[in-house]
Amino acid sequence: MPEESKGQPGCSKWMNATGPDGEIVLSSRVRLARNIREVPFPYLASDSQADDVTRQIRQTSSELQDEMGEMRFFPIKNIPPLERQVLVEKHLISPLLIKEPHNSAVLLRSDEAVSVMVNEEDHLRIQCLLPGLQLEQGLAEANRYDDLLEEKLAYAYDEQWGYLTACPTNVGTGLRASVMVHLPALVLTKQINRVLSAIAQVGLAVRGLYGEGSEVVGNLVQISNQITLGQSEDEIVRNLYGVSRQIVEQEAQARQILLNEGRDRIADRVNRAFGVLSHARLMSSQEAMQLLSDVRLGIDLGLIEEVSGNILKELMVLLRPACLQMEAGRELDSLDRNRERAGLIRKRLESHYQ
Amino acid sequence: MPEESKGQPGCSKWMNATGPDGEIVLSSRVRLARNIREVPFPYLASDSQADDVTRQIRQTSSELQDEMGEMRFFPIKNIPPLERQVLVEKHLISPLLIKEPHNSAVLLRSDEAVSVMVNEEDHLRIQCLLPGLQLEQGLAEANRYDDLLEEKLAYAYDEQWGYLTACPTNVGTGLRASVMVHLPALVLTKQINRVLSAIAQVGLAVRGLYGEGSEVVGNLVQISNQITLGQSEDEIVRNLYGVSRQIVEQEAQARQILLNEGRDRIADRVNRAFGVLSHARLMSSQEAMQLLSDVRLGIDLGLIEEVSGNILKELMVLLRPACLQMEAGRELDSLDRNRERAGLIRKRLESHYQ
Repeated sequence: MPEESKGQPGCSKWMNATGPDGEIVLSSRVRLARNIREVPFPYLASDSQADDVTRQIRQTSSELQDEMGEMRFFPIKNIPPLERQVLVEKHLISPLLIKEPHNSAVLLRSDEAVSVMVNEEDHLRIQCLLPGLQLEQGLAEANRYDDLLEEKLAYAYDEQWGYLTACPTNVGTGLRASVMVHLPALVLTKQINRVLSAIAQVGLAVRGLYGEGSEVVGNLVQISNQITLGQSEDEIVRNLYGVSRQIVEQEAQARQILLNEGRDRIADRVNRAFGVLSHARLMSSQEAMQLLSDVRLGIDLGLIEEVSGNILKELMVLLRPACLQMEAGRELDSLDRNRERAGLIRKRLESHYQ
Repeated sequence: MPEESKGQPGCSKWMNATGPDGEIVLSSRVRLARNIREVPFPYLASDSQADDVTRQIRQTSSELQDEMGEMRFFPIKNIPPLERQVLVEKHLISPLLIKEPHNSAVLLRSDEAVSVMVNEEDHLRIQCLLPGLQLEQGLAEANRYDDLLEEKLAYAYDEQWGYLTACPTNVGTGLRASVMVHLPALVLTKQINRVLSAIAQVGLAVRGLYGEGSEVVGNLVQISNQITLGQSEDEIVRNLYGVSRQIVEQEAQARQILLNEGRDRIADRVNRAFGVLSHARLMSSQEAMQLLSDVRLGIDLGLIEEVSGNILKELMVLLRPACLQMEAGRELDSLDRNRERAGLIRKRLESHYQ
């Protein structure tokens, strides 16, 4: 947030660092849903009950300062609306959290790898977001914060059902683990539908970039567990990890096929994408994502050398409407955004050149 | 030709110099058809008659050395086939001249602004090719060579009909004057069909880049007189000049409209074209022409500053199959050509940058 206040959206750790299998798995996310015992879930709570929860978490986080590291507490209502949207675009909070900003809040670690949403669908949503395929590390980190908070807070927990949550699909572990994968070669070799339906058949959910119902753009897919009950946290994470590794293998093979069967054609494609990105004067979000996906593929295949692979992760966030308007320092209509977006891409690509 | 022999097609004067109205009129061409009295036209002449014509012209040109400037005489059969094709691509000779290479020849000035074809459709075709709108200058130059040759050669001339030619459409003045115009804004503003049919209505012919029947690519159009009889040379040239000036005005207005009504959109278009040209790895001839047309428009409108406007004229020739193969130093199949073409474009654009 301090960075946002300077009018320049900064990068979260997941955006500008790399991790294991980072060429294909852009990020891993683990979140735990928790609620306070004997307080109605947020959608049923009165204002004063919800305020009470917020106050309690703020208090707790300040008591746990030493153990939690550099965390800051922000009531959503104190964050200017545009900056709230920036947090959503960076995947640090959900759109739901800012929909009713009266009693909601977020606790955010300075590297933005850990965030705790307060009064979203549940009283607490502890989230860890890491670069690359780091589901176990994400779970460990989320668990550490969960354990710290549990020492101070009385969680709603049932011996038989486990953690109780506002929505029954989260009951049990309250765990949702997900990976964001970049699958351009499976798309280009027309294997993507087969792969995605296989994923659905093993009980995992496949979504676009910005959660349920969002379109798949830029060959980016989010894969997450659907089941939270009847499996341990470790099992859930191990299962998703295993599937992710298989997807990584399949995408890697497809990339090899592209190189073997038409190196010129794929080199042409990715370099054209780079040429358009670095020279266009107007650019829609959707086109930018497709071209950035191509450029990232080119970088991964060694066909484009001047640019860092993180350009995709950085720009897929920084080109979103709120980030763009923050960068421009003013409200932008759709045509303005297309102009600013093209300008920002050129600037970023130039600075990457140097 | 000396340059071709080094395996690097060089530029003719019309390609790398500019002339009046040079932003829209790329080149002006004037050619005079002449025949030797009492010798059958080439398509009826015996081998020995045709050889005799060639010998006579060679002799004459060597006697006129001082007056004609630095001219060189090349029997077509002595030119390697690929280099013959290069001369066609540079518009210095016609495809017909190299179709039957036994007795044909070309007399070529060192700046390649003047060429005299021997035993094409007629015994002599004196051609002057200049950058920009320079029809009168072209006519004066062609006339100068015509007068010099006429002093030594007995032309087939009839008091009533004028100069006699193999094809009746050339009888009289034997003059064909043409301009090559670049009309991207008339195309983009959808006025091109109206303008071209108006040109046809005043008795001028409209053609694509490589003569009759060739497709219009890269928004380039050749406009020439159809009538050679009943008008003086000056009238023919003055008429084509007047129409060319009107087209220049209309294209200039259309360019202003593009700037006024959507500067961002046109800037986006031309810069994208530049981005693709400077990064693609495979490029068809047709796509290259369209993108070069866009880039040239961008240069003319001041929206692209790093590159010289002559890039269009140079590359529209140097990217043709024979020039490409000369540059590569080997025969190329279609895919190879697309690769070499993309490479040559990148190289040229880089050298223009510096």
